Amino acid sequence: MTTERLERQLEFIVEVDKLKSVYRRSRLINRSRYENDAEHTWHLIMMAMVLSEHSNRKDLDLFRVFRMLLVHDIVEIDAGDTFAYDDAGHLDKFEREDEAAKRIFGLLPEDQAKECYALWREFEDRTTDEAQFAAAVDRLQPMLHNYHTEGSSWKENGVTSDKVLSRNKHVAEGSTTLWDYAEKMIRRAVERGYLEK
Amino acid sequence: MTTERLERQLEFIVEVDKLKSVYRRSRLINRSRYENDAEHTWHLIMMAMVLSEHSNRKDLDLFRVFRMLLVHDIVEIDAGDTFAYDDAGHLDKFEREDEAAKRIFGLLPEDQAKECYALWREFEDRTTDEAQFAAAVDRLQPMLHNYHTEGSSWKENGVTSDKVLSRNKHVAEGSTTLWDYAEKMIRRAVERGYLEK
Repeated sequence: MTTERLERQLEFIVEVDKLKSVYRRSRLINRSRYENDAEHTWHLIMMAMVLSEHSNRKDLDLFRVFRMLLVHDIVEIDAGDTFAYDDAGHLDKFEREDEAAKRIFGLLPEDQAKECYALWREFEDRTTDEAQFAAAVDRLQPMLHNYHTEGSSWKENGVTSDKVLSRNKHVAEGSTTLWDYAEKMIRRAVERGYLEK
Repeated sequence: MTTERLERQLEFIVEVDKLKSVYRRSRLINRSRYENDAEHTWHLIMMAMVLSEHSNRKDLDLFRVFRMLLVHDIVEIDAGDTFAYDDAGHLDKFEREDEAAKRIFGLLPEDQAKECYALWREFEDRTTDEAQFAAAVDRLQPMLHNYHTEGSSWKENGVTSDKVLSRNKHVAEGSTTLWDYAEKMIRRAVERGYLEK
């Protein structure tokens, strides 16, 4: 073990503190402020732990889901948060985020940089069972936050129920149980006036 | 799978959103504000992933470390953050936190409530290799934050280097490499005037 290796690891750890200052469009459930990416990520890992039994895949590698979630938003330190309903922002999202991934994960020793980059790409590609389940909790969480704040972020951004359904329907790839729940929640949100039809 | 089981899991997930509003004494590295427990926890899991090779135990169960860290501060939703250098606050810390653990984890289905409670107790008891490594990153992180903010929280709270050394020396139980690094950082902090001798 070289000291240089440890120094690089700690430089990365100090750098990613910036994720706590990347704000999202979702509010905390107590509505006091917008949520940041670091606390959002903690919440997703907690959700993955508690909800893993609802995955479509019965022998899910939950440890891999945790590691994917852990790193999945780090690129937003450079690339910023792209709001789920910002179609224009999604056009060049991959390029912006890929450059960010290379810079930030590149602070780590090479073997770890490769591991983190691969985890991030796996999450983005959404082809493995683990990535599909990770994506399912990543989409369910802001819907829960919206529902429990009477649609605060949906209303602020003029989002309608058909947009919510089409943007989030891939929750079902990871968990049909969670998507069934989400569809009911979206219907209730419309009935209660939290979300425009 | 009953709907009631999923409802209990989601009630827990909504409840623990409150962890994002439990503030600690440490500042973010950009000094803009105090850090909250949820983002702190994300940072610790990231540290555990990047630094696990420095554990004293070579075949560490990192997945268990992740799960322990994930739940370790949830009790502070009810019990509040007890500052590391608050000796009086530590006298009844266990009783306050044990009550909180029973209420909050008790929102979950019974099997999951027991699992989370056991993870929290394992972290607190610090007798397993995994708990000792989890505790090591939990103590190293605020020292890093202090060092990189020129001792902001040490200064605000009149903390001296002998207190920092004695409160954090159990980092060595989890990782002698990280404790060696921390000791050097503490010495440099004194030399640079970030920390009182």
